[in-house]
Amino acid sequence: MSSAFAPLRNDTFLRACLRQPTETTPVWLMRQAGRYLPEYRATRAQAGSFMGLATNAQYATDVTLQPLDRYALDAAILFSDILTVPDAMGLGLSFSEGEGPRFERVVRDEAAVAALQVPDMERLRYVFDAVTSIRRALDGRVPLIGFSGSPWTLACYMVEGGGSDDYRLVKTMLYARPDLMERVLDINAQAVAAYLNAQIDAGAQAVMIFDSWGGVLADGAFQRFSLRYTAQVVAALQREKDGARIPCIVFTKGGGPWLQEIAGCGADVVGVDWTVNLGQARAQLADRVALQGNLDPNVLFAPPEAVAREACAVLDSFGRPERADGSWGGHVFNLGHGISRFTPPEHVHALVEAVHRHGRLLREPR
Amino acid sequence: MSSAFAPLRNDTFLRACLRQPTETTPVWLMRQAGRYLPEYRATRAQAGSFMGLATNAQYATDVTLQPLDRYALDAAILFSDILTVPDAMGLGLSFSEGEGPRFERVVRDEAAVAALQVPDMERLRYVFDAVTSIRRALDGRVPLIGFSGSPWTLACYMVEGGGSDDYRLVKTMLYARPDLMERVLDINAQAVAAYLNAQIDAGAQAVMIFDSWGGVLADGAFQRFSLRYTAQVVAALQREKDGARIPCIVFTKGGGPWLQEIAGCGADVVGVDWTVNLGQARAQLADRVALQGNLDPNVLFAPPEAVAREACAVLDSFGRPERADGSWGGHVFNLGHGISRFTPPEHVHALVEAVHRHGRLLREPR
Repeated sequence: MSSAFAPLRNDTFLRACLRQPTETTPVWLMRQAGRYLPEYRATRAQAGSFMGLATNAQYATDVTLQPLDRYALDAAILFSDILTVPDAMGLGLSFSEGEGPRFERVVRDEAAVAALQVPDMERLRYVFDAVTSIRRALDGRVPLIGFSGSPWTLACYMVEGGGSDDYRLVKTMLYARPDLMERVLDINAQAVAAYLNAQIDAGAQAVMIFDSWGGVLADGAFQRFSLRYTAQVVAALQREKDGARIPCIVFTKGGGPWLQEIAGCGADVVGVDWTVNLGQARAQLADRVALQGNLDPNVLFAPPEAVAREACAVLDSFGRPERADGSWGGHVFNLGHGISRFTPPEHVHALVEAVHRHGRLLREPR
Repeated sequence: MSSAFAPLRNDTFLRACLRQPTETTPVWLMRQAGRYLPEYRATRAQAGSFMGLATNAQYATDVTLQPLDRYALDAAILFSDILTVPDAMGLGLSFSEGEGPRFERVVRDEAAVAALQVPDMERLRYVFDAVTSIRRALDGRVPLIGFSGSPWTLACYMVEGGGSDDYRLVKTMLYARPDLMERVLDINAQAVAAYLNAQIDAGAQAVMIFDSWGGVLADGAFQRFSLRYTAQVVAALQREKDGARIPCIVFTKGGGPWLQEIAGCGADVVGVDWTVNLGQARAQLADRVALQGNLDPNVLFAPPEAVAREACAVLDSFGRPERADGSWGGHVFNLGHGISRFTPPEHVHALVEAVHRHGRLLREPR
């Protein structure tokens, strides 16, 4: 089926992921289809709720494409939520205004852990339908990124029942009953792998694993309870589809202390937040993986000139993508976290233009 | 006046801060006088409010000493809040139950910044009175640590008006009007230095600067807007009092990416959170400073055996304090953040005992 999709007209993002030559630095923004856009708010009002948007292929397609109509972004990302998988496990996801996600049922004891199962992927059909619908609507403009939460990040929500500021319950399980925690994580890893593979089958041209809460773990615990299971997912992914390589991006918010280890997890691209010095990270990893990031989304509240200046600083920190020996490092420009709902939309123009303009300069012969 | 204080009977903490030989690893806990202790909750109920506790020298003395009566801790820390300085600047600090600190007046525009001044230290007399009262009550049991928020951390609260999850307002000022931000930070640095020096005059035997929100800054912004002003404070501190060296501890939550630079700020001790690998940090810094940390406070929810095991892992990560050449590295055991109000008090016993026991083992001849 996916062979029927239109050929790609802009594959800059995919090439940067794979450390191949590009004419400029590709840019997309985490949560680029979101509340800072008035057209998004209008569609969401029609849909009635966040899940109303996410579960309807047409709405999901509409909002995914909205930022592409405004800005010269180099990739689209599936409009969905990282918590669809535990929802399909039967935990009952809901979103209350201003409070974020909540699960009706939580996984805190031996019985709840024993009852967990890899969900039937048919329960996530609405996601795969959205992927196919978006890919068709894109008609080859830019590649489509599929995504999931990491096994650890899903576990945080499954145990806590929602967001948390101290991760007390999930860490209590981790330290008191590591055996239970590992069973949850193993099931999550199997589920996430199946979920991402089905997104690839449906038309996703790259996949991203959001380890949004990996950075709250202690050194040692991160490796054992987060990275190990992310690596299990990456190892189980199909990496080629219809002759095209499917890049895999792993983003651990707060993962700066463990870049070296994260870069060894099998992903093509490592996403980094703004605390990371991109140039130092690149040197440390010696271009063995591409890097994605890492502007502080709060920069977008500054005037357009300041936005452009800070974007150039990020690009300069990474440096010239082409190396002295003619091989290439890969940089995908992004924020270090989702774009804020309070962002003035016109500032995003300044950002995207600055990245493309300065990215070309960084490729000129010396 | 301070020469009238009783001589110290346990100076293990001070020696570890200064990388001198110790019989075991000293331990104290951030927020050790706090809500997890029933006796603290009783005193607080008497005082009526958090500020009622902090502004009354007798209450502040009572709660500071409570954890020392339960546990064999090696240091006391002044009971106060990091936000006393902006309160003395006239911003009007209050604490609402469950919501954390709020300022009545915020510093968001040119006029508010222009009006800021280093406060008259007489407005903070209640803090210095508490320091002297606590030091007398300690009667030489353990050293007393004074503290303040860092210039950047104070600025976060002064601009945001309270806690924040995205630091949007303070970062908007930082990126849009760095000149205003720097004026706020310069005033804060002068105020914090005067405040800590007055605490030392009143009897504090070590001081700690809490850069609780340094870790939310981007690489580059951290150095310019946080570390630079922390270093300005450290440079202005009196480092000796009545013949005794006054160690200075700098703790940046989330500061792992910048350890090398933080270690160069002039402090004797660098506090690190649990994301940092203590052994790697020590190797990186080559024992040029002592390290404080770094157990995840959530470990204290696990059973006592697990608490002891994780504490030993932290000590082992730091390794034997004595080096092959006979010189010493310094390790002050602590959590990587304040102790949780939900901590079972008996688990703290297991922690303190494990640190002292295993700390002695690490000093035995090979």
